Amino acid sequence: MDIWKSLKSRQNAVADRPLLALFEEDDRASDFVVETANMRFDYAKTNIDRDTRADLVKLAEHAGVAAKRDAMFAGAEINETEGRAVLHTALRNLDGGPVMVDGQDVMPGVLDTLAAMRAFANKIRASDTTDVVNIGIGGSDLGPAMATAALSPYHDGPRCHFVSNVDGAQIADTLRGLDAKTTLVIVASKTFTTIETMTNARTAKAWMIDHGGDPKVQFAALSTAEEKTADFGIDPDQVFGFEDWVGGRYSVWGPIGLSVMIAIGPKGFDAFLRGAQAMDTHFRVADPLENMPMMLALVGIWHNQICDYATRAVLPYDQRLAYLPAYLQQLEMESNGKSVQIDGTPVDHHTGPVVWGVVGTNGQHAFYQLIHQGTRIIPCEFLVAANGHEPELTHHHKLLVANCLAQSEALMRGRSFGEASKMMAAKGLTGAEQERQAQHRVFPGNRPSTTLVYPLLDPYTLGQIVALYEHRVFVEGVILGINSYDQWGVELGKELATSLGPVVEGVEPTTGKDGSTASLVDYVLKHSG
Amino acid sequence: MDIWKSLKSRQNAVADRPLLALFEEDDRASDFVVETANMRFDYAKTNIDRDTRADLVKLAEHAGVAAKRDAMFAGAEINETEGRAVLHTALRNLDGGPVMVDGQDVMPGVLDTLAAMRAFANKIRASDTTDVVNIGIGGSDLGPAMATAALSPYHDGPRCHFVSNVDGAQIADTLRGLDAKTTLVIVASKTFTTIETMTNARTAKAWMIDHGGDPKVQFAALSTAEEKTADFGIDPDQVFGFEDWVGGRYSVWGPIGLSVMIAIGPKGFDAFLRGAQAMDTHFRVADPLENMPMMLALVGIWHNQICDYATRAVLPYDQRLAYLPAYLQQLEMESNGKSVQIDGTPVDHHTGPVVWGVVGTNGQHAFYQLIHQGTRIIPCEFLVAANGHEPELTHHHKLLVANCLAQSEALMRGRSFGEASKMMAAKGLTGAEQERQAQHRVFPGNRPSTTLVYPLLDPYTLGQIVALYEHRVFVEGVILGINSYDQWGVELGKELATSLGPVVEGVEPTTGKDGSTASLVDYVLKHSG
Repeated sequence: MDIWKSLKSRQNAVADRPLLALFEEDDRASDFVVETANMRFDYAKTNIDRDTRADLVKLAEHAGVAAKRDAMFAGAEINETEGRAVLHTALRNLDGGPVMVDGQDVMPGVLDTLAAMRAFANKIRASDTTDVVNIGIGGSDLGPAMATAALSPYHDGPRCHFVSNVDGAQIADTLRGLDAKTTLVIVASKTFTTIETMTNARTAKAWMIDHGGDPKVQFAALSTAEEKTADFGIDPDQVFGFEDWVGGRYSVWGPIGLSVMIAIGPKGFDAFLRGAQAMDTHFRVADPLENMPMMLALVGIWHNQICDYATRAVLPYDQRLAYLPAYLQQLEMESNGKSVQIDGTPVDHHTGPVVWGVVGTNGQHAFYQLIHQGTRIIPCEFLVAANGHEPELTHHHKLLVANCLAQSEALMRGRSFGEASKMMAAKGLTGAEQERQAQHRVFPGNRPSTTLVYPLLDPYTLGQIVALYEHRVFVEGVILGINSYDQWGVELGKELATSLGPVVEGVEPTTGKDGSTASLVDYVLKHSG
Repeated sequence: MDIWKSLKSRQNAVADRPLLALFEEDDRASDFVVETANMRFDYAKTNIDRDTRADLVKLAEHAGVAAKRDAMFAGAEINETEGRAVLHTALRNLDGGPVMVDGQDVMPGVLDTLAAMRAFANKIRASDTTDVVNIGIGGSDLGPAMATAALSPYHDGPRCHFVSNVDGAQIADTLRGLDAKTTLVIVASKTFTTIETMTNARTAKAWMIDHGGDPKVQFAALSTAEEKTADFGIDPDQVFGFEDWVGGRYSVWGPIGLSVMIAIGPKGFDAFLRGAQAMDTHFRVADPLENMPMMLALVGIWHNQICDYATRAVLPYDQRLAYLPAYLQQLEMESNGKSVQIDGTPVDHHTGPVVWGVVGTNGQHAFYQLIHQGTRIIPCEFLVAANGHEPELTHHHKLLVANCLAQSEALMRGRSFGEASKMMAAKGLTGAEQERQAQHRVFPGNRPSTTLVYPLLDPYTLGQIVALYEHRVFVEGVILGINSYDQWGVELGKELATSLGPVVEGVEPTTGKDGSTASLVDYVLKHSG
């Protein structure tokens, strides 16, 4: 592929160029930026210049991103290996008109479910319910947990708790503090067979009965498996379903978001959906250079596939976005951590990067050492709001913003050996010791980052941010030629766990297992009491 | 360096070897393992064979690990760029005899402080204190936060909360639910100048006064800056100091662990220290092949420096170890994310890897897709206990263990195209479609992992685990020739944040800033209300 080669040779040619020198062009700071109505995405602190950017845009054009984007929004079966449309965008298409799947408009169903969710959420919010426990894992957990924490200033409903892990520790620790008579349990599993979720759901049901609650009234389900939810004893009026064109990691916009809606109320949830819808519209109509998901994706391709940086750090300077890195970790890694293209042939490039991160300023006191002075380059994606939610603590917020901006500046600027030497000379060091100590204080600089800045993390803005990253994943997936919407890579572990179950219980022998697994089983059996 | 070259050529020679084939040697499962009294570390599922292992051990010998280890324990100034000894091990040297620094035994001071901590913790535990808020960041936060969560089954003291971020959201959300009259605030900052911590401490003090508490009685400090703690108004009897030979990320064993001690009681904290001390003794006396920190480190060197895997995932199958990945992220990345050797010359190899991870089984439903089917190899470090703490939920725990062991098995074993084709044939697919769909279901396998298994996550075992990883970092640092105990890479960001402070407040102009930073400041100023 010519464009890939062109990009690689461009990268080789500019690898040693100081990023600061790029700003000698006067308008870089206004040109290497995308603005929407209320967000600004700055990618000027990367080693992308206009020629590189033109190539990157060509890459997207060549891959047919625009046509595939339109196909996705139109309900085409773009999740080919599962034979499904990909329409999480329909869940937030509040006033965008019909969306057809197999000749049928799905919007009436979406809006009906949303209305039922609103009625239920209002009922719960008006009741004496004190606590909501959402039991789900993966997409049925990370989305609502992330959004509920992010929107805590808008939280005026019952407390929300999230239980995901099959480790009994989590359900035990969560239920311990709760009143079984005033707790609502939401069981979130599309198939109602997810082993972690069903194990926790049964434990929660037993707890509720033991402590005087009534599961018939106090359980709801987010599931399409009507028979199974009925068998479990859940009132059909408290079951909220969604179609197979909503993938788990894209599902917070519908019933899986019920706990968020109960927390912040239907109006706040609507604003969350409208923010996402605004990003959808932007993604559909904006030209590539003005298109935020497109440019975010192209920066990602540049750093991961062209520059070969194996990871990217997501660094929100916002305590309430504490779960965003984990959320994006799933969104990006599960979507694009693949090795074959849609046609079954091997990919030509690396696929999804490792996505990780921690909120700032915490990370500064933990792993930024490596980001600044380690041997591997970590592209950093900063996020920060101009305002916090605590009017009496604006001095905290100013420090937060100053730290966020200072980090991207420091990563780019670095500190030269000459500067470090002067510092050591000022401390009275001379000769070889001055030089040695100075070397430890050199920062190579030229480390790329992007910054997303917005006025305030309200529900609308959070909707925009999440949709922005969803579409970024889509664009990167199309460029790589992969299916971002299946997840076959999770199946083998499930199968082997099922076969290991009776072995770990000591009911079946370790025959056929490798020596390491067999020894580990033996250790567990010997030491379990 | 001959050994490095030898290792690299070994790796090239065996890169395509199936890991399963290694088990054809009968005793691999018992030989590629290190056991201590109550832990088993299995590294049999890596591509390390006996020849490779011998080279790795030679690498450690050549680097002088044993001599440097002894120097560390003996109080030598191995943190050379800061001119300090490295003696976190002294904090848990409960009955190990004198430890000399500059001709003075530090143990009487350590034991006195520990006794004072015990008396204070007992007083608080016996009082009507309902809540403890630990304000600290980095090492003054991650250690106690991680250990308190890990040991929650032993938690019988007041509730503990941890505030780290300068983002006002965190302190506001934490204090909102608390009674200022029954809350103890612990301010953890060695220098008592850390800007995040002092900003939060002042906010907490104002809150306490406003709400009828008494900061003179209800504040404690973990600090060596006696004047500054006195200026802040903290009773000298409630100030617990530690020496400059305890680095922040190694400090949970002393005063920084006060919140843990208040949570689980002095006896439990003693067990935590004794576990670490047991690992110290093991590390000092065990031969390399029987030495757990040594072998854990050599596996790390093999994967990161020789195989060039840029990251490692820490995957505890234990909900209560939820903060262990973040803790180890700091421990490893801040310690070994360097670019120069102690003598100031550039390192010859990559240094610290990116350390990241999430508890199992959660990660299975999030990012394991990429670990199994992505294009980059992620060495995985599993941890699991044979037993949980909930006797009535052993069925949860069995599932947890089965999943943990199944993942390492699946990563190694994989699924061939032949197997995947049979699966697709069984679903009725034929020809090209069978082949295409099968390709999506292939798992390459041969993905390396290690497993650490132990009977129960009690305080003693947690002490062992943390000390194990500390010594791993030490060994890797010695082999790389770097100073694992400084962190000059955090200074530049601090400096630039200080200079940006007045700019972000609109008090100083953006003159001298690059265009991107200046525009971001403008955006923030324009949108902050």
